[in-house]
Amino acid sequence: MRTQVGIVGAGPAGLMLSHLLHLRGIDSVVIDQRSRENIEETIKAGVLEQGTVDLMTETGVGDRLKREGFVHQGIELRFNSLGHRINLYDLTGGRAVTVYAQHEVLKDLIAKRLADGGRLVFGVSDVTVEHVTSSPKIRFTVGGTGQEIDCDFVGGCDGSQTYCRFLIPAGEIRTDYFRQYPFAWFGILAHAPPSSDELIYTHHERGFALVSTRSPDVQRLYFQCDPEENPDDWSDDRIWDELSTRVNGGGTEIKTGPIFQKSILQFRSFVCEPLQYGRLYLAGDAAHTVPPTGAKGLNLAVADVHVLARAIGSFYDSKATDQLEAYTATALRRVWRAQHFSWWMTSMLHRFSGANDFDLRRQVAELDTVTSSVAGSALLAENYVGLPLS
Amino acid sequence: MRTQVGIVGAGPAGLMLSHLLHLRGIDSVVIDQRSRENIEETIKAGVLEQGTVDLMTETGVGDRLKREGFVHQGIELRFNSLGHRINLYDLTGGRAVTVYAQHEVLKDLIAKRLADGGRLVFGVSDVTVEHVTSSPKIRFTVGGTGQEIDCDFVGGCDGSQTYCRFLIPAGEIRTDYFRQYPFAWFGILAHAPPSSDELIYTHHERGFALVSTRSPDVQRLYFQCDPEENPDDWSDDRIWDELSTRVNGGGTEIKTGPIFQKSILQFRSFVCEPLQYGRLYLAGDAAHTVPPTGAKGLNLAVADVHVLARAIGSFYDSKATDQLEAYTATALRRVWRAQHFSWWMTSMLHRFSGANDFDLRRQVAELDTVTSSVAGSALLAENYVGLPLS
Repeated sequence: MRTQVGIVGAGPAGLMLSHLLHLRGIDSVVIDQRSRENIEETIKAGVLEQGTVDLMTETGVGDRLKREGFVHQGIELRFNSLGHRINLYDLTGGRAVTVYAQHEVLKDLIAKRLADGGRLVFGVSDVTVEHVTSSPKIRFTVGGTGQEIDCDFVGGCDGSQTYCRFLIPAGEIRTDYFRQYPFAWFGILAHAPPSSDELIYTHHERGFALVSTRSPDVQRLYFQCDPEENPDDWSDDRIWDELSTRVNGGGTEIKTGPIFQKSILQFRSFVCEPLQYGRLYLAGDAAHTVPPTGAKGLNLAVADVHVLARAIGSFYDSKATDQLEAYTATALRRVWRAQHFSWWMTSMLHRFSGANDFDLRRQVAELDTVTSSVAGSALLAENYVGLPLS
Repeated sequence: MRTQVGIVGAGPAGLMLSHLLHLRGIDSVVIDQRSRENIEETIKAGVLEQGTVDLMTETGVGDRLKREGFVHQGIELRFNSLGHRINLYDLTGGRAVTVYAQHEVLKDLIAKRLADGGRLVFGVSDVTVEHVTSSPKIRFTVGGTGQEIDCDFVGGCDGSQTYCRFLIPAGEIRTDYFRQYPFAWFGILAHAPPSSDELIYTHHERGFALVSTRSPDVQRLYFQCDPEENPDDWSDDRIWDELSTRVNGGGTEIKTGPIFQKSILQFRSFVCEPLQYGRLYLAGDAAHTVPPTGAKGLNLAVADVHVLARAIGSFYDSKATDQLEAYTATALRRVWRAQHFSWWMTSMLHRFSGANDFDLRRQVAELDTVTSSVAGSALLAENYVGLPLS
């Protein structure tokens, strides 16, 4: 096969990149080790920034999102058992977030790519990428047959279990920046009515909790836990007790129901630099991971490929390479700011292992500052709904 | 002696309390172990919030401050060797800070108290305070003679080496909140011209540095160091080299000169709760300590006694005790917010012992967010110039 851009990975970064390139008249092929069913059914993040929503809408993949997504014009910060609303909409001049699950985004992108004649190859194995500094060639096996893609550029969009990142030589070229956190999130999916119309971010002396919703019948809740925690040790009753203890108060009460999924989410921050090497360009989780507190993972992937598709478009339009050369710097400024925001939300709301009562009260004072100051609320709001796409 | 309010400590809290009480027609006596000369010559903090300046001006102790103080309408945050100005004045609707040394404030307060017939007793020893829950009695020795003060209230304003705090029984009544930081500041005073018109807060991979000024001829500079550092190990050349490495760049250059004072400032955060017990009321460093990064120490002392003098005034005016009863809650809200602000400035600008390159880049991203967002800059500015006195 021959294409202009070979894309490894059919997650948010890879599919959106292929979609945006198509709109610029640029051909691509997307391959992924997973099956289409697996991709379309794996439950991950679900909070879309305003810029992500706008980009999907403007590029023709926002119809179902508009119908089925839940627009949230505010979030609640809870501390000392009382809720304080951050009015995202008013504080940002009319921006908001939309709760719409990542796998629904992927379904929409896959359907659109196929409708537009896009080439997506699922269930591949034995992926290798060669000659990324000259004439890239992607090899893989599908249905027992070896295949090759010759291409001008490679999009390394293969997620946090990335193969592509390691094509950039570590050390002299590639530097990895990493921070592990001393806790994790216990996440559940439950059949229950929503406990709240908006997301609730809770500070409690026992640790953080997050109340979020997926639909009128399915709720997604999290609470901070030890990374070594075993979900099997937690009965439904024990989970609801823990969540109620952290969240209930001042008229708010968690609504319970049968729990049908339990999982532990590890917390890590990662960034590699540069994002490019020869004709290989990394985007999304292949290049960076954020802790889930800021709800930034999917949105950063979309922001990356927004920059990258424009840069590749500029190259094919006029042979200009300046945007391609600036890709790392352009994309990483947003990535690092999102790393800071995710760390800020994390450090303000979580109980750290070495924390004492001074630290708990300092966190409450920070929450007091953020919720009682217009500037503080606006700083949180503008980062939560997402910086404008650059 | 008999007085209405016996005040232990002639620092900013004690002297300002005595001054504010006098303006309300309430009699007080201030005692201090130190000599007047020692108090008037010990160099400490020097950044006054707008509220401190306004209160001094409104109460008749602001004349010299107005003439000799330096109004700073902005500060500079430096990172990646480039300066970014925070326009305090524009971001806060016309508020600013004034650089005017703490010992000059104390000279002005002492002169004013004496001119107003205030009783100040310096050089006392063997201070004890009895019966704080009923009829307080302060005993001390001065000039070899034992003295007693009978009073209605005791102001515990005796600084971080406090005796008064320990009159509140630890445990059941008093809780101490404490956080040590793994570094210190190396502070110098030098005969040199100013390196900058405004204060420079510098982030550098070798650690924080602060450029401040005392007069056209005397400069005050600091750099983050190990708490175990010995000032004698540092020659003038070595100190200027370290400061230049951290601060110079982009047109900014440290101006050097003979160093005439070197000292190590320890970093700690402390708050005790409650601030009151019977008829004893703590204010200032006796009750709380902040790291110097936020320049809040003196200003918190002034804010405390502003609340306390009004509460005592309300008691003598109308026997109302509600403000006295609310003193701890009212004063500590500001104190905790200042603890958070001091921690924020500290965590954003200092190199921590466990920090890796991820953390350094995250800090730079935070500085990027703060300096490029109006909300971020305003949040820093409104806290730096100080919240309005409540």
